[in-house]
Amino acid sequence: MVPVYRLGDSLMLISIEREHDTTLTKQVYEQIRSKILQKELKECERLPSTRELARTLGISRNITIEAYDQLVAEGYLVMKPRSGAFVARGLSLQMKQDDKSTSSTYVQANLLSQDTIDFRTGNPAMDHFPRKIWGKLAKSVCEDSPNSIFGYSSPKGIEELRHCLVDYLLKNRGVRCNKEQIVITSGATQALSIITSLLSSPNSYVAVEDPVTDEMRNIFISCGALIKPIPVDEFGILPDYLSQKEKPSFLFVIPSHQFPLGGTLPIQRRIQLIEYARRMNCYIVEDDYDSEFTYEGNPVHSLQGLDSKNVIYVGTFSKILSPSLRIGYVVLPTELMDSFCHDRWFKDRHSSTLEQLILTRFIDEGYFDRHVRKMKKIYQKRRRALVDQINVCFNSPKILGQAAGMHLVVEFKGLSLLILLCIF
Amino acid sequence: MVPVYRLGDSLMLISIEREHDTTLTKQVYEQIRSKILQKELKECERLPSTRELARTLGISRNITIEAYDQLVAEGYLVMKPRSGAFVARGLSLQMKQDDKSTSSTYVQANLLSQDTIDFRTGNPAMDHFPRKIWGKLAKSVCEDSPNSIFGYSSPKGIEELRHCLVDYLLKNRGVRCNKEQIVITSGATQALSIITSLLSSPNSYVAVEDPVTDEMRNIFISCGALIKPIPVDEFGILPDYLSQKEKPSFLFVIPSHQFPLGGTLPIQRRIQLIEYARRMNCYIVEDDYDSEFTYEGNPVHSLQGLDSKNVIYVGTFSKILSPSLRIGYVVLPTELMDSFCHDRWFKDRHSSTLEQLILTRFIDEGYFDRHVRKMKKIYQKRRRALVDQINVCFNSPKILGQAAGMHLVVEFKGLSLLILLCIF
Repeated sequence: MVPVYRLGDSLMLISIEREHDTTLTKQVYEQIRSKILQKELKECERLPSTRELARTLGISRNITIEAYDQLVAEGYLVMKPRSGAFVARGLSLQMKQDDKSTSSTYVQANLLSQDTIDFRTGNPAMDHFPRKIWGKLAKSVCEDSPNSIFGYSSPKGIEELRHCLVDYLLKNRGVRCNKEQIVITSGATQALSIITSLLSSPNSYVAVEDPVTDEMRNIFISCGALIKPIPVDEFGILPDYLSQKEKPSFLFVIPSHQFPLGGTLPIQRRIQLIEYARRMNCYIVEDDYDSEFTYEGNPVHSLQGLDSKNVIYVGTFSKILSPSLRIGYVVLPTELMDSFCHDRWFKDRHSSTLEQLILTRFIDEGYFDRHVRKMKKIYQKRRRALVDQINVCFNSPKILGQAAGMHLVVEFKGLSLLILLCIF
Repeated sequence: MVPVYRLGDSLMLISIEREHDTTLTKQVYEQIRSKILQKELKECERLPSTRELARTLGISRNITIEAYDQLVAEGYLVMKPRSGAFVARGLSLQMKQDDKSTSSTYVQANLLSQDTIDFRTGNPAMDHFPRKIWGKLAKSVCEDSPNSIFGYSSPKGIEELRHCLVDYLLKNRGVRCNKEQIVITSGATQALSIITSLLSSPNSYVAVEDPVTDEMRNIFISCGALIKPIPVDEFGILPDYLSQKEKPSFLFVIPSHQFPLGGTLPIQRRIQLIEYARRMNCYIVEDDYDSEFTYEGNPVHSLQGLDSKNVIYVGTFSKILSPSLRIGYVVLPTELMDSFCHDRWFKDRHSSTLEQLILTRFIDEGYFDRHVRKMKKIYQKRRRALVDQINVCFNSPKILGQAAGMHLVVEFKGLSLLILLCIF
């Protein structure tokens, strides 16, 4: 279970008491300051404009301006011309040491007893990893491969794997590329982290769907990017909210199965996004982490298939197979290949050659397709059981994002609370 | 074979012709400019002071000042107060696309015919990877491990591997640590790259042994660090050349078997380094990539064993086993653990769990010690054959760094040329 984090939402929790002894300015000032110190507002996070905050709280704009001014004077906020107010840097070391929330996934990984159903998102059904076949292939790859595979390899990844990804991606996701545009990465995380360091610059921002999880947000922030939230509805990102004036470094979207809300982006909005990227001359980064699992209707093809020049496509084997393998991939427009590979070579050289070879044989020998079909059936069954129980136990819950993927969201009547469940 | 790169050496190739039509200033200006454009001088590289360059070339200092001024005015160089002149940033994208030298290792990896002896450094004897045992362990790990290993793991690496590294490092390298100070990384490269992003800052520099290979230098530079060369002699770094005024972000040394010159740093200098780090309150990063292979005398213990608070120890399995595995490790002073793990989590999560488990069993079941003993004998034999042939074929060559490790350096009489050979 992961709390849904709506960017800037915590500011909405500011409560204004008109009868209070304290002035309204001080109330706003103190609550924002306390949220910064308690890391509810994180460094580099953009705050709403003074106008917007004043309107939301139903107070005069002079009050929010005065509160922001004081926070700037004391170093909590920094103002950037034509961009607005941001939480200042400077508590970062302390943050890193104190803030354990970022590591919750791995700290708690082994704390669950056997009887507990694990509803945390991110992990596939670990009891169904194809152990026997993987082990057999591992042994065979170790024994039969040429000597050269034990030396250094290419930062792109091995040719055989990139070659079979070309076919797979075209057939299943409508991705159009050749093998010279693919880099095998250490999970989607590494792909996103390198893209961020390549494309983002101190004077620009990354446009990110809002809500998005803290985990994803932290990948961008830890590479030094500023992020700007773009609202989503139940279908996904709302392109009308993209800035027509300020060009983003890139636009990060999850069009197939938005995380966490689960929407699938309609084609009209996809076209709007591509037209935006072309007009602004920026890239769209498409994260497509779990679209192999579609339970209702046909899977919508990738954004990349509509525009291979402006769209960077990121995929992973973490959800289909296992995150413990650390194998993901990125499909890049040709002009980004050299700089991406250069950066990757000096970050960690390349991914493990043996595991790339095992995966190649797993795909080539038909095990992969069979595994996806099997997992889809298992997840479909688990999903049905979960949805049935939610409907039995709660009063008219609204279930979002259940048509595809590995998680769903439940909205409970009368509560603004969203609960995110990994259905498997 | 890798050319020895001496930092700033290319400037020494400036030739001054007093009888030439062109003014001396223009000669200096044009040759530096051309070296920048041809990437012989790389972005962020520090140039010698105008005083030093004038002395070396035997010309007036006014000439070098004037040449530098013009290069600054035209944007080729930037001056930093109290630091000197540096090659400006800005041609980086072009560099990344044109400069194929950085990828020479992988581009050429498969181009050698079977009859060719591969003298390039970096790769261990690939024909002796323990295929059978590794394959057997891989199969067994896949079949026998608990389900939880197929989920996300810790950025530190699995506990079992860190636990057995503690014993191994104490026994073999005199490294003193507990398992909570170890992070398993994707090779030594990732350890060095994360250390650089954590410790370096825009106003500081990394003190690096000179000469060092281009590969190593590029790891620091691509993380945004400025580097300052510290001369070495045949025993290793010369601590007297460290700046007493300007504190480095950290000091990078290879004390066991300097790369490329092959020196082993004497204890007096090791103490000098540690005293320096304590006085300046900075870290020493100790790279210990191949000290398992010592052929003459006893291996000198690590710097880390002398001071576990100021020394960060980096090791790898790339040379002992295979770089294709991408498994290295770093031993950190406790206060750096959280920020290192935080950074690593958002860069690529963690290393492949299956390969960490295979390696743990490889060490625990005694295969590792046996493999090191076997490889030491093979390398000793190959080294002897190479040294014999060098002595037969050349006139009194001077062979450096043959007492340990996996490469040696030959200096030929009457030539200032150093040739670096991987002896295996």
